[in-house]
Amino acid sequence: MKRVERFDIFELLLKGEEPADSRVVVDCSAVFKNGDQRFTINGFYNGNREYKIRFMPQEQGIWRYEIGSSFADPDDSYGEFECVENTGRNHGPVITNGTHFQYADGTKYIPFGTTAYAWTHQPVDLRERTKKTLSESPFNKIRMCLFPKSMVYNNNDPERYPFTKNAEGKWDVHNPDLGYWTDLENQLKDLMDMGIEADLILFHPYDKGRWGFDELSREDNLAYLKYCVRRLSAFRNIWWSLANEYDMVFRKTEEEWESFGNFIRQEDPYQHLLSIHNWIQLYDFKRPWITHCSIQSALVHKTEDWKNEFQKPVVIDECEYEGNIEESWGHLSAFEMAHRFWTVTLKGGYCTHGETYHREDEVLWWSKGGDLHGESVKRIRFLQEIVYGLEGEIQPVQGKFRINPNDLQMTADNPSVQHNPYLKQILSMNPVDRALLSMNNATYAGRHGDDCFIHYFGKSCQSLFTLDLPEAGDYAIDLIDIWEMTREMIIPKASGKTKLRLPGKEGTAVIATRI
Amino acid sequence: MKRVERFDIFELLLKGEEPADSRVVVDCSAVFKNGDQRFTINGFYNGNREYKIRFMPQEQGIWRYEIGSSFADPDDSYGEFECVENTGRNHGPVITNGTHFQYADGTKYIPFGTTAYAWTHQPVDLRERTKKTLSESPFNKIRMCLFPKSMVYNNNDPERYPFTKNAEGKWDVHNPDLGYWTDLENQLKDLMDMGIEADLILFHPYDKGRWGFDELSREDNLAYLKYCVRRLSAFRNIWWSLANEYDMVFRKTEEEWESFGNFIRQEDPYQHLLSIHNWIQLYDFKRPWITHCSIQSALVHKTEDWKNEFQKPVVIDECEYEGNIEESWGHLSAFEMAHRFWTVTLKGGYCTHGETYHREDEVLWWSKGGDLHGESVKRIRFLQEIVYGLEGEIQPVQGKFRINPNDLQMTADNPSVQHNPYLKQILSMNPVDRALLSMNNATYAGRHGDDCFIHYFGKSCQSLFTLDLPEAGDYAIDLIDIWEMTREMIIPKASGKTKLRLPGKEGTAVIATRI
Repeated sequence: MKRVERFDIFELLLKGEEPADSRVVVDCSAVFKNGDQRFTINGFYNGNREYKIRFMPQEQGIWRYEIGSSFADPDDSYGEFECVENTGRNHGPVITNGTHFQYADGTKYIPFGTTAYAWTHQPVDLRERTKKTLSESPFNKIRMCLFPKSMVYNNNDPERYPFTKNAEGKWDVHNPDLGYWTDLENQLKDLMDMGIEADLILFHPYDKGRWGFDELSREDNLAYLKYCVRRLSAFRNIWWSLANEYDMVFRKTEEEWESFGNFIRQEDPYQHLLSIHNWIQLYDFKRPWITHCSIQSALVHKTEDWKNEFQKPVVIDECEYEGNIEESWGHLSAFEMAHRFWTVTLKGGYCTHGETYHREDEVLWWSKGGDLHGESVKRIRFLQEIVYGLEGEIQPVQGKFRINPNDLQMTADNPSVQHNPYLKQILSMNPVDRALLSMNNATYAGRHGDDCFIHYFGKSCQSLFTLDLPEAGDYAIDLIDIWEMTREMIIPKASGKTKLRLPGKEGTAVIATRI
Repeated sequence: MKRVERFDIFELLLKGEEPADSRVVVDCSAVFKNGDQRFTINGFYNGNREYKIRFMPQEQGIWRYEIGSSFADPDDSYGEFECVENTGRNHGPVITNGTHFQYADGTKYIPFGTTAYAWTHQPVDLRERTKKTLSESPFNKIRMCLFPKSMVYNNNDPERYPFTKNAEGKWDVHNPDLGYWTDLENQLKDLMDMGIEADLILFHPYDKGRWGFDELSREDNLAYLKYCVRRLSAFRNIWWSLANEYDMVFRKTEEEWESFGNFIRQEDPYQHLLSIHNWIQLYDFKRPWITHCSIQSALVHKTEDWKNEFQKPVVIDECEYEGNIEESWGHLSAFEMAHRFWTVTLKGGYCTHGETYHREDEVLWWSKGGDLHGESVKRIRFLQEIVYGLEGEIQPVQGKFRINPNDLQMTADNPSVQHNPYLKQILSMNPVDRALLSMNNATYAGRHGDDCFIHYFGKSCQSLFTLDLPEAGDYAIDLIDIWEMTREMIIPKASGKTKLRLPGKEGTAVIATRI
């Protein structure tokens, strides 16, 4: 009996007739059963009178399948295979667990993503370079578009498009370019082998008449989505990102986004992660079809607010990019990018990298991939090692009310506030100024229960800090330099209020770990 | 005939009786006349049955004076002196000129201030060190308190207080400690000789019952102000700062601040610069007695807004301090302090320095003076040299509307905005987020007519910039590194739109100067 690892792809290849009309809406399916588990899986036409049905088994054991009637050949209609234990890097798809993520087999997964929107639309040698770079990077997720991208630094045409054109020169979504999809799948497979999740962006605004993929009819968009789900959903390492900057796609209405999102939620047998990325206005992540918040914002200190509001994991999928281009969103220092990762992490969320260093050949990582030139990546790896080394998730800790009259971190959660003239003044400040001041020089605190306390001092150059540890436990305290990537124990054993001396520079953190 | 330089002090010493009651409200005055000019100047009691009348002549020529009747001695009641041209560093008091400053003789004066609130309350040797440090610094203004200061790092008592105490142990404002005032005048004189303006803080909240100077009655406060004006106003290098953090002085009402401000405006014969410094809520700088805005805020990019609102010069007299203490207002990096100076300057205002590096001996520059330990001071000097080298004042330039959909610098001043879906989205953003995003990565532009264009790129690491120069003129373009303090010509002759390559790091500026 054929054996397939749990979360790998079991694929049926069926011979049939050339589709008469649509090569997307084809009547090809199979039912897979294992005990109480039952999945109806739709296939797709793959050219040469061949159809494929792909199934990702999520439970071990014997799976029996029955091929749908249109392909009913008494001898080939039934079959079975054995699903065996997953091994090696195969931990299954990433799923949510409260406001965090994990692999389906329970293994820890903490997103450290990057962005290369159009890397699969580049020539083969460049794509190979991109994958080599990824294989040496800390990244375990990549945001990438299915449609090609037209924008500054994105002036080349791809070799292939998702669809072919009809006789009138219009895109025929019912006639996919099979080479495009096979090629895309090869890239997804390569990412899978590297342990990298592919955050697939299904729609985006970077077209504007150049190719017309942003002007397809609603029916055509649904056919495209149907094809995506049928071909790609058996890949365990895909996430669906319904759009990049959905609110810049002016031709689509909220009702359409809703129907597309619900459509994927219904069609995808594996319920892959699904979200939608904004430009200005966050989508309402409370909608049931959305699994997590995928946010563009430079205001990364708000991560915790969003987590509290939406009660789902928060991924800051765009917080501007490390680089040196003229565009306002593409010239962060490497330190600032590393700082934003630390900020998001301490606020209980997940951050995504991108890099935009100007190059005359227009190969910028953020879109085309290639090589990484920046200095933030190794700092992100350093953070990743620290975070993966923790016992569990980081819970943000609110700054305490302090009576220091010049301290703008004062909050109204203290009962003595009502009679405090200092606080009255602070609360009289207009909300804009208050927010601006709170953002300036903010420091960040997080904990994992009583096991671990982290303080990240951000841009503060303070050399003095009183760490408020539980009296009950003993803690070892490490000093971290997020830029120099050093971690050294400064106090082997401490409890209660503990005065620390810090180096007095930006990018300092301390971690107290229970011993 | 006695000769006195214009803006120097002509002092009359009169013998009289010991004051029967108040040593502050004494009937001692003289009228000074020169052509149409006529000043009635009140004197003060200086102990030992001596009275002094100090006069700062502001016009050259022969000044005749007549001493008031209570001292009328037929032989000594009249006199004259010759006021001669001012020389050397003596350019007279600083006055406003629109939203800028200048010396009274027309010489350029651009404030580059620092802060050492309690430096005159420290032991003599420390004060001497402070003055030596100042003499080697770029600073031409210092903020300093008349009352002693009680606060973190300010735990020592001064040797002298402005007043003596009465039999009940209460401060007797009518019985000044003459040694305190003589000593203060010596410090003012030393500052004057160094070309440094003394921004004298008359009230502050850092007492809270330790000495009780913030609990004097309204009448006592007026007597104190009367004495200040009589003794000190002939010093050309004084500014009156009615309060530091007025809105933290909870015992004083707005009506009192108004009456005190108007009182000084009426009593001071020379109309010295007069303002009031806030903690949270800016004072209403439109009030007629206020000559300029003295602002505490870390939101220094708002400088131009305040200038436009109040139509007076804007001095950011506190934007937090370079240092490493735990307090949120005292741990800016040196780069951040330099960056704030550049920001304020490009926004057409003036910035004030302060430094709070922790020291076990509690001698922090921001309060006690001593030595400067920071790295921002030499960058401030570098900026000062650049600004003094310009032909005239910097006028801020608003960022232009650009169609780049990701560019948050877009503003609504373009008529095509109404039909622009990108801008509609941006304008739908809540004001807090908009403000936060505008502050992040902002770049700053200023010009002096068509003679000079400056762009400061702030935290942007962009390596590309298109400078939009007039087609009509020829300009030399210099590249500036605000941290390395380098300035090098990169293009000897340019006009019109000029593409520049920048080093791609934080703290870069370019200056185009008409040749």
